[in-house]
Amino acid sequence: MTDEEKIDALKSALPDGAWTQDEDIIEPHLTEWRDKYFGKTPLMLTPRTTEECSQAVKICAKHKIAIMPQGGNTGLVGGNTPQGEVLISLKKMTKIREINPTSNNMIVEAGAILQNVLDAANEANRKFPMTLSSQGSCTVGGVLSTNAGGNHVLKYGTTKELVFGVEAVLPNGDIFNGLTNLRKDNTGYDLNRLFLGAEGTLGIITAASLKLYPKPAYVQRALIGLDSVATAVSLLEDFRAGGRLAMFEVMPSIGYRAVVDNFDAVRDPFESEYDWYLLCDWEVDSEEEGAALAESILGKAFEAEKVLDAVIAQNETQAEEILSIREHMSAGQKFLGGSVKHDITVPIDKIPEFFKLADAKCQEVAPGCRPVGFGHFGDGNIHYNVAQPKDADKKTFLEKWDDLSQPIFDIIDELGGSISAEHGIGIMKREDLAERADPTKIWLLKSIKNAIDPDRIMNPRVMI
Amino acid sequence: MTDEEKIDALKSALPDGAWTQDEDIIEPHLTEWRDKYFGKTPLMLTPRTTEECSQAVKICAKHKIAIMPQGGNTGLVGGNTPQGEVLISLKKMTKIREINPTSNNMIVEAGAILQNVLDAANEANRKFPMTLSSQGSCTVGGVLSTNAGGNHVLKYGTTKELVFGVEAVLPNGDIFNGLTNLRKDNTGYDLNRLFLGAEGTLGIITAASLKLYPKPAYVQRALIGLDSVATAVSLLEDFRAGGRLAMFEVMPSIGYRAVVDNFDAVRDPFESEYDWYLLCDWEVDSEEEGAALAESILGKAFEAEKVLDAVIAQNETQAEEILSIREHMSAGQKFLGGSVKHDITVPIDKIPEFFKLADAKCQEVAPGCRPVGFGHFGDGNIHYNVAQPKDADKKTFLEKWDDLSQPIFDIIDELGGSISAEHGIGIMKREDLAERADPTKIWLLKSIKNAIDPDRIMNPRVMI
Repeated sequence: MTDEEKIDALKSALPDGAWTQDEDIIEPHLTEWRDKYFGKTPLMLTPRTTEECSQAVKICAKHKIAIMPQGGNTGLVGGNTPQGEVLISLKKMTKIREINPTSNNMIVEAGAILQNVLDAANEANRKFPMTLSSQGSCTVGGVLSTNAGGNHVLKYGTTKELVFGVEAVLPNGDIFNGLTNLRKDNTGYDLNRLFLGAEGTLGIITAASLKLYPKPAYVQRALIGLDSVATAVSLLEDFRAGGRLAMFEVMPSIGYRAVVDNFDAVRDPFESEYDWYLLCDWEVDSEEEGAALAESILGKAFEAEKVLDAVIAQNETQAEEILSIREHMSAGQKFLGGSVKHDITVPIDKIPEFFKLADAKCQEVAPGCRPVGFGHFGDGNIHYNVAQPKDADKKTFLEKWDDLSQPIFDIIDELGGSISAEHGIGIMKREDLAERADPTKIWLLKSIKNAIDPDRIMNPRVMI
Repeated sequence: MTDEEKIDALKSALPDGAWTQDEDIIEPHLTEWRDKYFGKTPLMLTPRTTEECSQAVKICAKHKIAIMPQGGNTGLVGGNTPQGEVLISLKKMTKIREINPTSNNMIVEAGAILQNVLDAANEANRKFPMTLSSQGSCTVGGVLSTNAGGNHVLKYGTTKELVFGVEAVLPNGDIFNGLTNLRKDNTGYDLNRLFLGAEGTLGIITAASLKLYPKPAYVQRALIGLDSVATAVSLLEDFRAGGRLAMFEVMPSIGYRAVVDNFDAVRDPFESEYDWYLLCDWEVDSEEEGAALAESILGKAFEAEKVLDAVIAQNETQAEEILSIREHMSAGQKFLGGSVKHDITVPIDKIPEFFKLADAKCQEVAPGCRPVGFGHFGDGNIHYNVAQPKDADKKTFLEKWDDLSQPIFDIIDELGGSISAEHGIGIMKREDLAERADPTKIWLLKSIKNAIDPDRIMNPRVMI
């Protein structure tokens, strides 16, 4: 059977509406927003139910047709751009199947947009604690498959920790049903977990049972001016005491200025400039409690001469203005020219050391370059993006991507960190994983992949 | 090579002190405290380091010698009693290798007694949120391998959720090192999770990186008298609002009375008797906040006529007295004669329905029997122990174990629950798992087992 005959067999076995070859419909699924990857596919499947998805995968399995699943197409590591694989878009599976406030869970289909899930939880007087800048377009299936992070990991954990279980179509087309709401179920290995962060290499997540949390009565936000990254880290202990801290985001001056100086919609609440900025949320029971807590915590930090200036949000508008700076950090970097980007983690107490080593290494490799390291420092997660030297040629600078990345990854390895904190491996870091991970880890990853997908039909170019 | 020659080969390859055949030393490792399982072993390995453990397993792998790992020998499903396997006791690996308050983690060896871990965390001004009645003798390795639960799951999750990663010796003897303290690491499948709750079937956990939490400033405890289990469940929503609820334990009159009437050390704080009792903890910032919170929550419940009586602990002594009733629940049941025990979960909103169906079924199978369903209702976890009819013959009653269990498991399956909430599968529920689980789940479990332990040397009679 030729490849074309296989695709024909697949098409003819599926009902109308469950696939398309319309180029106009397919085209937006073949590129991604950073314009880093461009793809091609012979066919896009658009199953409307889990059964349709299962039926399609069974035929793919029979003919050994490679598949790439796709959610909202907001991935950042090339794991969502097909290069000849049949594309399965989950965009037609968007139902919120069930919300159970007693068990604190909701069952949603993989194609549901995150924002819709957040809204549905909110209407049920619950919080699904995930905020991503892509929440208006990313989908539950994609978020789960990449184990996305975001600003709330500090308090609630990564996506993995927000899931009771999944429904997934396995590489052989069988349906695994883990859609439980049980907080306790000790009947075998944690199969649900295997699919979370697997980047579609072990099966296609078609639905998930998500954990819901009580809505905090009030969120107290503050923005703080600091002298150094070491000071920021040293504040974590006092700031998180009592367990109310829900956000601890750090930004360096260069990134902060690129935002407040360039976007009309964003305002700098400070009159002076500082080397570093820290944005915090505390989830509390009332506005009064929030004000008292922020004043007490910040008062102590002022006394210890750790804080140079601080703005305590007095109302929701002010709170949103502050968050808006953080949310523009990625977009703001385009004003600095080209950037070599890293999404990495180090143990929290090694963050200052990381900056010392990495900043020095950057100057060695690309003198004059401007590192912008910002992000979720409360989780040890740094988006360490290295902007080109002022007035340098963007293209020439970006050719140094590997020259910059590899020594930075060396530093990460030395400090016991991770070369992918929240974006995943995809195509982008596949070789790095293979080269840098412990051989025993690689053996385990491969053994599991081979056991569940022996013919390598599920996202075969990705991760492992 | 005969079996005996294989054991000789194993012994001669290991250093002195890393094994024993002394019957007096081995004997306590061959029975367990409920006297349900009695075992035998040709040799007990007692590695002192991960390397010694790895070395031993490599020889076992070479000769295909079956191994059973053992922690504190407090398991409840027969997964820790060897029947001819070489026993590996982790009891000599007890080190607390590292405590890192910034990353909020501690690295401990598998043989460390849970109580010592709790104490060490406490000394570092942190909380490791696990309380088990066996904490004075159970070990970290056993707790992780069985994914133990306990009273704090409601707020902090089961053991799985309290672990950053593990170090484990694989069935081929290689060492997997997942001893991270990174909250974010998206570099492949969640391998660490695979070992948690795997009951030693995929390898031997030799150490773990545990998550630490802030110590709550104050714990407010209350004991409440209720009319029904439905009322208890209906209180959960208000009681957990604000996210402070850390314990929600329910006890029926019969179990409660068996404790307070029979143990001198335990006192009933109530003057009247109630059909059901609810024990709650709220973790708060101060004693004043605790008192105010309990009064407000209970006041509302009194007004709604859901609560018949309540004792709000005024000091630590009173708080301990109240908890002591709950802690004696298992021991108290011996005063009711023989019991057929179940450790099950149902979705929280189905708890009342479960009791209705299960209680009726019990009377059908064993008229006059006395169900004692107590435990972690805030997690849907019921220890549904069925005591013999008064004055019946214990042995004759216990012969009905399966006659009672199977229809109860049928009810669990119907309600979407789990036949093992926190004790695991072991030997006891192995057939039940095989018969009741979805074939796709069984296929996944077996595929993983075969991939990682193709010769089935790791705890081969257990789980799958």
